[in-house]
Amino acid sequence: STPGNGAARPPSSAVAASRPLDRRGRLGDTGLAMDDMTPTLLHGVPPKVKAPKAYGDRLHRLQVELVKLQRAIVKQDLRVCVLIEGRDAAGKDGMIRRIVRHMAPRVVKSVALGKPTETERHQWYFQRYAAHLPTSSEMVLFNRSWYNRGVVEPVMGFCSPAQADAFLEDAPKFEAMIQRGGLKLFKYWIEVSREEQAKRLERRRQDPLRQWKISPVDDAAQAHYDAFTRARDRMLAATDHPHGRWLIVNGNNKKAARLNLIADLLSRLTYPEKDDDALSVDPTVVMPYRA
Amino acid sequence: STPGNGAARPPSSAVAASRPLDRRGRLGDTGLAMDDMTPTLLHGVPPKVKAPKAYGDRLHRLQVELVKLQRAIVKQDLRVCVLIEGRDAAGKDGMIRRIVRHMAPRVVKSVALGKPTETERHQWYFQRYAAHLPTSSEMVLFNRSWYNRGVVEPVMGFCSPAQADAFLEDAPKFEAMIQRGGLKLFKYWIEVSREEQAKRLERRRQDPLRQWKISPVDDAAQAHYDAFTRARDRMLAATDHPHGRWLIVNGNNKKAARLNLIADLLSRLTYPEKDDDALSVDPTVVMPYRA
Amino acid sequence: STPGNGAARPPSSAVAASRPLDRRGRLGDTGLAMDDMTPTLLHGVPPKVKAPKAYGDRLHRLQVELVKLQRAIVKQDLRVCVLIEGRDAAGKDGMIRRIVRHMAPRVVKSVALGKPTETERHQWYFQRYAAHLPTSSEMVLFNRSWYNRGVVEPVMGFCSPAQADAFLEDAPKFEAMIQRGGLKLFKYWIEVSREEQAKRLERRRQDPLRQWKISPVDDAAQAHYDAFTRARDRMLAATDHPHGRWLIVNGNNKKAARLNLIADLLSRLTYPEKDDDALSVDPTVVMPYRA
Amino acid sequence: STPGNGAARPPSSAVAASRPLDRRGRLGDTGLAMDDMTPTLLHGVPPKVKAPKAYGDRLHRLQVELVKLQRAIVKQDLRVCVLIEGRDAAGKDGMIRRIVRHMAPRVVKSVALGKPTETERHQWYFQRYAAHLPTSSEMVLFNRSWYNRGVVEPVMGFCSPAQADAFLEDAPKFEAMIQRGGLKLFKYWIEVSREEQAKRLERRRQDPLRQWKISPVDDAAQAHYDAFTRARDRMLAATDHPHGRWLIVNGNNKKAARLNLIADLLSRLTYPEKDDDALSVDPTVVMPYRA
Ligand SMILES: Nc1ncnc2c1ncn2[C@@H]1O[C@H](COP(=O)(O)OP(=O)(O)O)[C@@H](O)[C@H]1O
Ligand SMILES: Nc1ncnc2c1ncn2[C@@H]1O[C@H](COP(=O)(O)OP(=O)(O)O)[C@@H](O)[C@H]1O
Ligand SMILES: Nc1ncnc2c1ncn2[C@@H]1O[C@H](COP(=O)(O)OP(=O)(O)O)[C@@H](O)[C@H]1O
Ligand SMILES: Nc1ncnc2c1ncn2[C@@H]1O[C@H](COP(=O)(O)O)[C@@H](O)[C@H]1O
Repeated sequence: STPGNGAARPPSSAVAASRPLDRRGRLGDTGLAMDDMTPTLLHGVPPKVKAPKAYGDRLHRLQVELVKLQRAIVKQDLRVCVLIEGRDAAGKDGMIRRIVRHMAPRVVKSVALGKPTETERHQWYFQRYAAHLPTSSEMVLFNRSWYNRGVVEPVMGFCSPAQADAFLEDAPKFEAMIQRGGLKLFKYWIEVSREEQAKRLERRRQDPLRQWKISPVDDAAQAHYDAFTRARDRMLAATDHPHGRWLIVNGNNKKAARLNLIADLLSRLTYPEKDDDALSVDPTVVMPYRA
Repeated sequence: STPGNGAARPPSSAVAASRPLDRRGRLGDTGLAMDDMTPTLLHGVPPKVKAPKAYGDRLHRLQVELVKLQRAIVKQDLRVCVLIEGRDAAGKDGMIRRIVRHMAPRVVKSVALGKPTETERHQWYFQRYAAHLPTSSEMVLFNRSWYNRGVVEPVMGFCSPAQADAFLEDAPKFEAMIQRGGLKLFKYWIEVSREEQAKRLERRRQDPLRQWKISPVDDAAQAHYDAFTRARDRMLAATDHPHGRWLIVNGNNKKAARLNLIADLLSRLTYPEKDDDALSVDPTVVMPYRA
Repeated sequence: STPGNGAARPPSSAVAASRPLDRRGRLGDTGLAMDDMTPTLLHGVPPKVKAPKAYGDRLHRLQVELVKLQRAIVKQDLRVCVLIEGRDAAGKDGMIRRIVRHMAPRVVKSVALGKPTETERHQWYFQRYAAHLPTSSEMVLFNRSWYNRGVVEPVMGFCSPAQADAFLEDAPKFEAMIQRGGLKLFKYWIEVSREEQAKRLERRRQDPLRQWKISPVDDAAQAHYDAFTRARDRMLAATDHPHGRWLIVNGNNKKAARLNLIADLLSRLTYPEKDDDALSVDPTVVMPYRA
Repeated sequence: STPGNGAARPPSSAVAASRPLDRRGRLGDTGLAMDDMTPTLLHGVPPKVKAPKAYGDRLHRLQVELVKLQRAIVKQDLRVCVLIEGRDAAGKDGMIRRIVRHMAPRVVKSVALGKPTETERHQWYFQRYAAHLPTSSEMVLFNRSWYNRGVVEPVMGFCSPAQADAFLEDAPKFEAMIQRGGLKLFKYWIEVSREEQAKRLERRRQDPLRQWKISPVDDAAQAHYDAFTRARDRMLAATDHPHGRWLIVNGNNKKAARLNLIADLLSRLTYPEKDDDALSVDPTVVMPYRA
């Protein structure tokens, strides 16, 4: 099915420009050879990602860089906010585990909010997320984020179409606001192909250590793969903005995704004793949504 | 001194339209005889407010209405947010005490945040206020609010001019956002003349029960009366918007202010068994900032 | 009915000594003429309390003393914890309102916890109360307290007999523990006679401002007046201990109760510029449970 | 040096019985050959612990059991509280990481409180810990716990001797209280020999990933090894009680410690489909403080 065509509901005016065709056109206009990259990645053809060599060593080197970053966060009173978004089984949990592994829990926090309580359901939508934004000398990693309302919630029917539309309008404003005063925001979407997701979910079902993780959302991940694609495209188009650019990560190989997302994040930050050689990013693994 | 002319710093583009001359003109254009009202009230000539008759009885009647409102808040799952702003000694505390006096503390909450802690100082500015927004079946009264950064903070030097400018731009967006999903927001500014404020602050200084309340902000209230006026005008002009209209209350007579603010608030809400006769508002005591 | 005899369930060994007969005996042994006082007050004969003269002036004078106390709390980093307990309609809310009226909300806090949430219900019983204990430079007034489990909960069936028994054993230990490091604890039980309570509850039912306050617990207050008496006696006997003496307040006249409870509390604390003349306590209105 | 003899301050009466001599005697009285075990382990001779075979497989099997336990925690509304205590570099963090690795973060929580804030410093000592006790369907692992005041704080001078004495008296009462209503408490002390600790701290100093973890407490760990031993012995003797038995873990081999602590914990709990074969515990690696 052609993504975007079978959209369950008409896109609101705010996101009318988000149709793949338009966007692909625009991308082409940039003159960059994005056709083989973003569309491939975002439109479901499973890109072949080679397993990285020397994974352990390279990860170790990146973790040393993260520790340097941590020192800078404390010394220079930085506030860093990283959203790790993506489909089910894209590898968000494992990604975050590698990032925080050697960092101080009082400096680097990971936040994974469950489904909202009755009280939270009737609050301002961003309220429970806002409560976890980093204060001075903190980095916060959101394992899923306010973008739940951009993708999971509308596809699963956890929110109304009107709520999802309102969210797409508000998110960029919210993100512009929270960055007043110096907070740095990074937004990563980890993409995984239909086939790779199927394999991982099946493995999860078999594994006695992971069976309990299977949720209704996981069950829907495959059945509604295309609906998730459409919601994702609409969301990315509506919420990629100057104060909150999306970075797309090819998650089909977990190790490559980890090395490249971490390198990409570090390369966007300034800290003493930076080892630039450790931070090369493969542009076919992490790429800006809009070049 | 002509308010607005001697402004300590050039108004940001966002609030350029806030100069009294413009505004007074615009007000005149409405055809309403606002010249004798809003300007009088907001520009320092102490308006004579007659002490209301039968204050006790009328307050009692309004409190009965508030109890009806409370019932509706619970039954209809309303979320009501009321900002009580104004100069020092304008009568904010006493106002709120009368409103909550016979209401259920689990339904009606009053929030008076102190000066921010070190942690809060480095958070997103709206974060600590957002934490107190009403959830379902709640009314929250803010005794001072995020508008601290519109008036008190820039005048007292608690924030930078750039922070105050950013605030004036963000406040309307924040207010539009939090009203998604049905929260109702009301913003009252209680004004008090230079003379009346002087009298009240002096009384406070004499009263052994109130001496401890004197803060650096109170000391500045008179010395910088005009600076507060200018900040107020800039703030009102920049933040009166379709999703957050300012209501100006003449606070020179406390009893009149109480009766009229409560009546005004109630008249803007729908609840069963409403006694409209109890809700007449004197338009010289409570008036919209923009008619 | 003779209080204590008709106890619904056999007293646990921990509180076996709490039977009125024993206690009255012991009281007699002290040589004090307590028979006309404590027993009268605690055993339901409505004592005649004269309305105090010059109530307004005396309250004002006490509130000036409370402000002096507040200053000492801040200067000397005191931690003061006051439990205001008693039957329904005993006048707890009004008492606390008079105490906090002119005190700084950041120094003096009043805590009235609602019925426990599902989460709280499965926590350690004291946990949600412990969260509100005063830190340095604070006074906390509990409007009802952990003693819910001593009286209201067992009478209303909100807890099991075993839970109530456990509570009576634990409360003194908990109170000894929290006073490590200097916190000062005061425990007041405001008593009201059957007749006076009936009058007040009836007035509440008639008053449009107070009708909403009527709860299932209020409905039971009269019907189970004797059961409350028995639970109260058991609770007082089991939880009056060297680190947590009970003070009994005759609440049949609200004004007298207020003046005397406040004077009693102040007289037990040390603070500069204390005006001892303002602090006389009528020993028939506030009296220690054990002399 | 004979442990206990050079104690910096005389033991309070509450813990007079804690002198190693007495205890060793008592242990001997049990008839168990504890002399070669507990004393060896607790008195500094580095016991040789063989690296366990098939570590990965055995850990995996235990983690499967932990997932079964997790299911029981949710289904049977259990509340489980596990204290992981021990010297610096004993392996607490890594232990907890293995336990939680495959468990649901909403069910199993790990709590590592930093040094107390100014506010917390003046609260009731147990207050900030009490806030994290498990509610229904939760397991909480404390990475260090209230026992900070039993060992680290007195040795480092973070609390007064009187505060430490008070703590030793209060801890058993606190633990008895929180277990009312069904919470299950487990207390593990992971011991590590002077030599092994030296090696680990040195490795930490060399490792760019761990350097930042070096704190003043770590620096003291070796210099005051004996003082920690004495405080530990005093603490264990005073706080091993019927409602809170200490379990001593030989931490000199991290892998053996992990397998045995997890197996020991699981063997003390009941849950469906328990695989007892996976839960054998080496009695020289985990042993009760008092047999
Ligand atoms: N009823 C609901 N309403 C809103 N959000 C929900 C609801 N149920 C689940 N979610 C959210 O959907 C997201 C995906 O759910 P799930 O796959 O169960 O969790 P995860 O992928 O984080 O393990 C989570 O962030 C969860 O909080
Ligand atoms: N189901 C319940 N379980 C435990 N406590 C309850 C329950 N219902 C009411 N309570 C408690 O009983 C006390 C008396 O209730 P009520 O008379 O309604 O309140 P109040 O007298 O404080 O206005 C309150 O502290 C309330 O929290
Ligand atoms: N000034 C202090 N007062 C009280 N406790 C402290 C203080 N400094 C450190 N601690 C506590 O001592 C313990 C050991 O400290 P440290 O070795 O730095 O941490 P950890 O071993 O948990 O990484 C921690 O629980 C910490 O909270
Ligand atoms: N240093 C500060 N920074 C920011 N706001 C402050 C500061 N001091 C006081 N305020 C705020 O100014 C308002 C008036 O202060 P006061 O009159 O002292 O209560 C209150 O809302 C305070 O929270």
